Amino acid sequence: MSMKDFVESGNVRLNCQLLFSAEIDKMTDVLRRTLLINKSRRENDAEHSWHIAAMAMLFSEYTVEPVDVSRAVQMCVVHDIVEIDAGDTFAYDAKGNADKTAREAEAADKLFAKLPPDQGALIRSLWEEFDAMETPDAKYAACMDRLQPFLHNTLTDGHTWVEGSVSREAVEKRMAVIREFMPEVYKWIEANLDRAVHNGWLTDLPQPSVIL
Amino acid sequence: MSMKDFVESGNVRLNCQLLFSAEIDKMTDVLRRTLLINKSRRENDAEHSWHIAAMAMLFSEYTVEPVDVSRAVQMCVVHDIVEIDAGDTFAYDAKGNADKTAREAEAADKLFAKLPPDQGALIRSLWEEFDAMETPDAKYAACMDRLQPFLHNTLTDGHTWVEGSVSREAVEKRMAVIREFMPEVYKWIEANLDRAVHNGWLTDLPQPSVIL
Repeated sequence: MSMKDFVESGNVRLNCQLLFSAEIDKMTDVLRRTLLINKSRRENDAEHSWHIAAMAMLFSEYTVEPVDVSRAVQMCVVHDIVEIDAGDTFAYDAKGNADKTAREAEAADKLFAKLPPDQGALIRSLWEEFDAMETPDAKYAACMDRLQPFLHNTLTDGHTWVEGSVSREAVEKRMAVIREFMPEVYKWIEANLDRAVHNGWLTDLPQPSVIL
Repeated sequence: MSMKDFVESGNVRLNCQLLFSAEIDKMTDVLRRTLLINKSRRENDAEHSWHIAAMAMLFSEYTVEPVDVSRAVQMCVVHDIVEIDAGDTFAYDAKGNADKTAREAEAADKLFAKLPPDQGALIRSLWEEFDAMETPDAKYAACMDRLQPFLHNTLTDGHTWVEGSVSREAVEKRMAVIREFMPEVYKWIEANLDRAVHNGWLTDLPQPSVIL
């Protein structure tokens, strides 16, 4: 899309909001490692964000602390939008994750500046809250962000685990927030980890560190 | 996905919720007429639902009555899930829209029965509220559901309008909820309608009825 196609409104604030809305359609172009459950292709960030927002409407009864579902849903909706510029970083890519924070902060500066300042600040604070994973709402949203690709992996022969030669230990570390915040759900995770190792989808060896 | 791939949890309710989460991934397979803004392909229901949920976080200041953004966002997330079975009905397909209600009610019976009854009833009532377009929250969500494809059409040379030989009158009818509920936003719609007719993307003739 080029700016020349956009018919401006007389309202400058509304123009910003409409152009930002057009900008975030690029989320459909950010591919994740995870396959769709029908295995036809990799999912994109828009699909993933929608999927975890919907899931956040279903699983709040299992959290060890009360959560505000409506805030968590909104966090899920915006949790990945900085990837429009920063790109998706595979959860089990140690190198990619080393500079993820810096890349995403830079992308956030650029992206949120396109919104009216009050709204840019609001969405940014939701994203930062999600990323810090300290509040109950953020922990719950983070659980959905981990449960969904885990569910996909269990239903697609461990696709991303096999592709990345991922170890059980690495997945356990990634799922730690579910173990702590949604222990009942973690029982299901655990049963699937056993099966994934049994099926050869996950290795039972310690994950090599970045240095090695 | 077949049931045999799913490792059951000891918790029957949790199994339902996980299987429902897997089921709704099929939203990625329901194609709409609308093109992505980058024109690469048609968008799907998961992408569209995510996009309008995000937009619902931005435009509430323009409504003529106060709305609860968090409820509207959740409505946007679930507003199309019955299309997993009922399929997408093109907004300007009079014939398809004639039996849409019956097809979707049947799909809803089937889909929501997969959830624990309390959650099935809750999501269904949100969807029904959206569909009835009577409450402020539902009107606002409906505005987002119309503004987003309109925005895409204005940025993709009127793609779905041209493809469907759609008239200005038909689009005005579809946008009526924006005219009434978000008049400031409708000014922008109107400027784009003028341009769309000028560019030959919309006809200036009355829309033929189903009978003709």
